[in-house]
Amino acid sequence: MNIVEQLKPFFEPKSIALIGVRMHVMELEFNILKFLLECGYKGALYPIHRRDSEISGVKTYPSVKEIPGEVDLAVIATPRSTVPSIVRECTEKGIKSIIIESQGFADANDEEGQKLQNVVLRIAEEGGARILGPNTLGTANAFSNFSVSFAKQLDMQRIPIGVICQTGMFISNSSQLKLLGKGIDLGNACDIDCIECLEYFGQDPDIKLIVLHIEGMKEGRRFLEVSSRVAKKKPVLALKTGGSERAAKAALSHTGSLVGRDDVWDAAFKQCGVTRVSSFGELSDMTKAFLHLPLMKGRELGVISMSGGLGIMSLDACERCGLEMAKLSPETERKLIEMSPPWMGIGNPVDLWPAILTSRRPLTEVIEAALYSLLSDQNVNAVLLIAAAYFERLSTPLTKVVLEAANTFKDKPIVWWPYEGWMYQVYPSELEEKVEKAGVAIFPTPEGAIRALAGLANYSEFRNRRSYL
Amino acid sequence: MNIVEQLKPFFEPKSIALIGVRMHVMELEFNILKFLLECGYKGALYPIHRRDSEISGVKTYPSVKEIPGEVDLAVIATPRSTVPSIVRECTEKGIKSIIIESQGFADANDEEGQKLQNVVLRIAEEGGARILGPNTLGTANAFSNFSVSFAKQLDMQRIPIGVICQTGMFISNSSQLKLLGKGIDLGNACDIDCIECLEYFGQDPDIKLIVLHIEGMKEGRRFLEVSSRVAKKKPVLALKTGGSERAAKAALSHTGSLVGRDDVWDAAFKQCGVTRVSSFGELSDMTKAFLHLPLMKGRELGVISMSGGLGIMSLDACERCGLEMAKLSPETERKLIEMSPPWMGIGNPVDLWPAILTSRRPLTEVIEAALYSLLSDQNVNAVLLIAAAYFERLSTPLTKVVLEAANTFKDKPIVWWPYEGWMYQVYPSELEEKVEKAGVAIFPTPEGAIRALAGLANYSEFRNRRSYL
Repeated sequence: MNIVEQLKPFFEPKSIALIGVRMHVMELEFNILKFLLECGYKGALYPIHRRDSEISGVKTYPSVKEIPGEVDLAVIATPRSTVPSIVRECTEKGIKSIIIESQGFADANDEEGQKLQNVVLRIAEEGGARILGPNTLGTANAFSNFSVSFAKQLDMQRIPIGVICQTGMFISNSSQLKLLGKGIDLGNACDIDCIECLEYFGQDPDIKLIVLHIEGMKEGRRFLEVSSRVAKKKPVLALKTGGSERAAKAALSHTGSLVGRDDVWDAAFKQCGVTRVSSFGELSDMTKAFLHLPLMKGRELGVISMSGGLGIMSLDACERCGLEMAKLSPETERKLIEMSPPWMGIGNPVDLWPAILTSRRPLTEVIEAALYSLLSDQNVNAVLLIAAAYFERLSTPLTKVVLEAANTFKDKPIVWWPYEGWMYQVYPSELEEKVEKAGVAIFPTPEGAIRALAGLANYSEFRNRRSYL
Repeated sequence: MNIVEQLKPFFEPKSIALIGVRMHVMELEFNILKFLLECGYKGALYPIHRRDSEISGVKTYPSVKEIPGEVDLAVIATPRSTVPSIVRECTEKGIKSIIIESQGFADANDEEGQKLQNVVLRIAEEGGARILGPNTLGTANAFSNFSVSFAKQLDMQRIPIGVICQTGMFISNSSQLKLLGKGIDLGNACDIDCIECLEYFGQDPDIKLIVLHIEGMKEGRRFLEVSSRVAKKKPVLALKTGGSERAAKAALSHTGSLVGRDDVWDAAFKQCGVTRVSSFGELSDMTKAFLHLPLMKGRELGVISMSGGLGIMSLDACERCGLEMAKLSPETERKLIEMSPPWMGIGNPVDLWPAILTSRRPLTEVIEAALYSLLSDQNVNAVLLIAAAYFERLSTPLTKVVLEAANTFKDKPIVWWPYEGWMYQVYPSELEEKVEKAGVAIFPTPEGAIRALAGLANYSEFRNRRSYL
């Protein structure tokens, strides 16, 4: 069986045995079965319980062996000491895919934890089964209305992102950071590892962008080989944590994994075309860019700003991120001079405020003219628009102008920083969705927008470089 | 007249002459008079117009000289060529405070602009008047319901922040970044400069925090002297832009000011106790910290996380920002061991999830116990709480616990990163206001929270260092 066939039941199981369905944290109940039903999961569900005959309206079975049909996937969430015998029961039942959510294995501080993990792994190997975990929130797949995370999935949107992480937090969609799609929490990764999942998502037609959260990695060379191959096909983002010495120690006790030196990781990611992000905020910005924008096919940025001061802020960010301010063509300069007051010096960033005040044309028309001038300029590879929309009667036509520009210049990313305005107060997410569908991305900070563009430019270079090998 | 008396009419004028009240940008009307009325300004208003006898219901005068009463402040927003004669009329009328909003002076690309600016300055000096601008959005003061910015003030909240900037964008409150309070846009700063305003806000009892946006500075030595004196009394944040060579050139054409080398600025800010921020997002985070939190009186941070993985992320941010993970006292460790499963290793960051799952106490009680343990520990100078509040019945008691902790430990900052949850989706700003009043700050990213704490620790060190001189 190749890796895709081996991992498929973890993402698209036709039938699931659930051992340890409910976890009570006093006032809260984490009920995997209930969450699966709420997700709209359509496969067969076999909850195991020694006494109850049903949970959440679903018939239970006293043990795995007594399940009548075939079982694709077993999910175990019972105290650690009970896990080895349950895994044996699963393999005896012929189950080839097992998720162990229970904690206290290699993540524990005692010898018993590591010993139990070794025992479990040996039983699985003997039975020909693959293990995810232990110490995992499991897997989720919005495309199949499926999740075994005991933290509730707030929404299951079919976003074409595959997430591979070492903490379950990333597979429960955050309102600030919508990643799933599909997700897998490797936990202690005693068997299934990051690299195998990278292969899996690399071949998954539902997935257009892969996001990695990495604390450590056992096989660096294999990771380099696989990730550079996958990154040729689709972009891979990596949030590598644990760069500090302290973090390395904490990661060891969190999931029992080893972490390498941070600069080594930097070089490795660069070599294999993986876009490294260093923070939660950066991950959010970069995801948005890779999901919604075309690649930036050069490093020359054009900036149009309704405020001279904010334009200057973007210059500093450019320098930090390795982008250049485009030298505008004479044709573009001529167009900008035409719309500006005669005393005005023309440059990039384009300070549009004097033109707006003096041109006697509608504000949105002035912005439109500047936007089209820059996007038509072959020296310009992307445009950052810094334009507020204070009122609805400004916001609506401005949005229209930006969307039409994106539609006209499909091969150049347009990013928008609406530092202020009505749009942000009244309907931020609706607006964001609308413009993102059109291929424009809105960012909460100018430096975030520019960093994201730099990510697109770096990745574009990697793709070109590889194709000439 | 000392500087406070000289600048007072720019912030609290009793009467204002408005020359060039309305600016039409086709579909939009920027009407200073209307905005002043909407602000609730109570002083006398004298709009000047040659033909109309009233604007927005207020009687107009054909010229400044024909205004019957005394005038505290004149605001000029007419084409540049008309400005010298209007300034002369103002000084002849005895007006000592003049704001020139018009553009095309030192900010222009032609010789005429600089020449006009020199002429205007000489006329003002001869008449004993002070000039703000040209090329400025003017001043705003929520404490007096006053603003002459032609961009509408979205809200006038009496936030105790004084903003001194070189772009008007910072004095029109952003929904993402509420700074005013009081604000002044220096524009070309041909007369009134950043240092004088720093003195002014330094002595203003309404102002507890000063925010600078600096593109360039003419008198570095004087800035060092004044800012270190002011920073002893109240915190000063500075967003210094124009660090890159390109930015320096753009700043020159934006407001005609010179910018120095970036590393020189870094050293200067450090020496004079000014907290430098390098981005819009950082300014937002740092403002929140200085406005709502006590200072961090050491560099030792305690982290409590509902997710091991997210805790590890905070370690990297600590190292980057110059904070340390606190070594917990034996007493604190004992308390944490008591509430955790027996196999669990105890460290800082505190991974609280295993304790939550196994302790059989309400989740909020477990968090409360950990929070109080760390805050009671004398090795811990501040606590970062990484805790989601997925549901309202979790969010409400958790908020209560956090607020009570802040109330009990008033001298240690508590920052909260609620990476997910109901609270963020339903009422983010209400919750933020509530917790901020109690002395807790919520941050959108963990790295932002930690960077802000580092700012508080640096400033605390500066204050202590100075007091021993």
